[in-house]
Amino acid sequence: MDEALTRERFEHALEHHRPEFGAFFLARFLGLRVSYGDQTCRVDLPTADYLYNPQGSLHGGVIAIAMDVSMGHLNHRFLRTGVTLEMKTQYLRPVTGPCWCEARFLKTGRRIVFSESKLYDEADRLCAVASATWLLLPEGADAAAAPTTTEPDGP
Amino acid sequence: MDEALTRERFEHALEHHRPEFGAFFLARFLGLRVSYGDQTCRVDLPTADYLYNPQGSLHGGVIAIAMDVSMGHLNHRFLRTGVTLEMKTQYLRPVTGPCWCEARFLKTGRRIVFSESKLYDEADRLCAVASATWLLLPEGADAAAAPTTTEPDGP
Amino acid sequence: MDEALTRERFEHALEHHRPEFGAFFLARFLGLRVSYGDQTCRVDLPTADYLYNPQGSLHGGVIAIAMDVSMGHLNHRFLRTGVTLEMKTQYLRPVTGPCWCEARFLKTGRRIVFSESKLYDEADRLCAVASATWLLLPEGADAAAAPTTTEPDGP
Amino acid sequence: MDEALTRERFEHALEHHRPEFGAFFLARFLGLRVSYGDQTCRVDLPTADYLYNPQGSLHGGVIAIAMDVSMGHLNHRFLRTGVTLEMKTQYLRPVTGPCWCEARFLKTGRRIVFSESKLYDEADRLCAVASATWLLLPEGADAAAAPTTTEPDGP
Repeated sequence: MDEALTRERFEHALEHHRPEFGAFFLARFLGLRVSYGDQTCRVDLPTADYLYNPQGSLHGGVIAIAMDVSMGHLNHRFLRTGVTLEMKTQYLRPVTGPCWCEARFLKTGRRIVFSESKLYDEADRLCAVASATWLLLPEGADAAAAPTTTEPDGP
Repeated sequence: MDEALTRERFEHALEHHRPEFGAFFLARFLGLRVSYGDQTCRVDLPTADYLYNPQGSLHGGVIAIAMDVSMGHLNHRFLRTGVTLEMKTQYLRPVTGPCWCEARFLKTGRRIVFSESKLYDEADRLCAVASATWLLLPEGADAAAAPTTTEPDGP
Repeated sequence: MDEALTRERFEHALEHHRPEFGAFFLARFLGLRVSYGDQTCRVDLPTADYLYNPQGSLHGGVIAIAMDVSMGHLNHRFLRTGVTLEMKTQYLRPVTGPCWCEARFLKTGRRIVFSESKLYDEADRLCAVASATWLLLPEGADAAAAPTTTEPDGP
Repeated sequence: MDEALTRERFEHALEHHRPEFGAFFLARFLGLRVSYGDQTCRVDLPTADYLYNPQGSLHGGVIAIAMDVSMGHLNHRFLRTGVTLEMKTQYLRPVTGPCWCEARFLKTGRRIVFSESKLYDEADRLCAVASATWLLLPEGADAAAAPTTTEPDGP
């Protein structure tokens, strides 16, 4: 494992993180870079062997983070902040280098949003596919002041 | 964000990680503790605000990592090493403190394993539910020497 | 295929169906019997080789219908009518005889409900597992007058 | 409910079904028409109010059958017969008229296949999205002689 790179990412993240979309600590530590297209959100994940599983490829959970971030930022940019109700990820190929994913909407409703994200390696081979269902927070709910519960309990 | 804790976890992980189940860098950095019951695997995740999303609760992707680890270690301990074909996670409640999940088998086949994991907070309230489908690696395939591809391509 | 049984089910369904929970034509034609426990809903599916796939076991889609019905009726009975946002089913074993499934809540919110259903064969072996996310219709929305769209379009 | 149409479909299915891909009773009774493109499979489902839920739109389980059939026939045509390990369906809009879905491969392996299917209404609006993971049966396993268990039990 490249410990120098790991430390560099860590120190950079610790210095530059903010509790905001695109800049929170975890996104920084993973080295995620977020960019936008026409109703799409792309997240690039650089080489990072400190995020590997014991078998020597990128941990599935890290892939899930990148794809979750791509869909969450898509909502935030083009609609408003939402919470993930559920997400399914299929792992088609192991990833052992840099990769990127792109999220897009399947359908946007007033409160419910369906979206998908596809993750590719450097050779643009499809490596993972995710779909998710989101609940948008009420309009006016600021991310910083967002409720910390999905919903009040009970019917 | 508690930067002292973040640095402590980082330095500890950097010193003590090994490319093994239960000890790889990412598991160490997240502070995961893995333990086993009768055909079950429990993963404890301590308080860690450096793993929060911009809304101030544990990032869904981190929850996914913990649950993936619980099911992967369950396979490794009671069967053998497998790869995640797919995993779905439902997020029932935001998590803002320590949490733990427990994985168990739904069905074990010769190559295909179905399992689930449920994640609870300190008050033992159910916060997330995951189900996954796994492909076991051929017997004799050592984790360290595991193939880096799921399968040869093509029919 | 037992054509006499198929015709008997068909004629019975055609005579006795009503556009109601537990009694709609498809439920009748499949021979579904719905019953309730303490915050649970059980659906029994009798032997029905006219619902088999070309390989000679119960079609996965029929299993999905039974499990969807179990969760939908659970909502209807203990909360109110909802629509399925998404559902995932894992198929653990083929089913070649009568079977039954039981649904229960994972979490109930004001609008969002998470539930699961597990399907067993006559020997009570677990054959399929489903989890779903539901959106409850607004209170007062009668099933018969339910909106035919999930939600208005647009953000 | 159009009982004359229901009976017509039933009688036609009873007369013309064969235990084969594209022709089994359930596919006939639902009125499914299967066709193929370049590594794609399309399934058309005609208007059929006898397949509606109590709320007056096409039952989600019927949608799941159509999408499952589209992916299963895709395998059978271009690879070989497989069994569904798991399938997730998202329901974006209710369907109240004819609809069609198209399946395509996400990745084909020697034994494991990942695929998706998207379902549209007459106006070509996306109404449902499914993804599935398949296990191909061993080469030479004839559909008619296919094993009735997914896999031998046990590790």
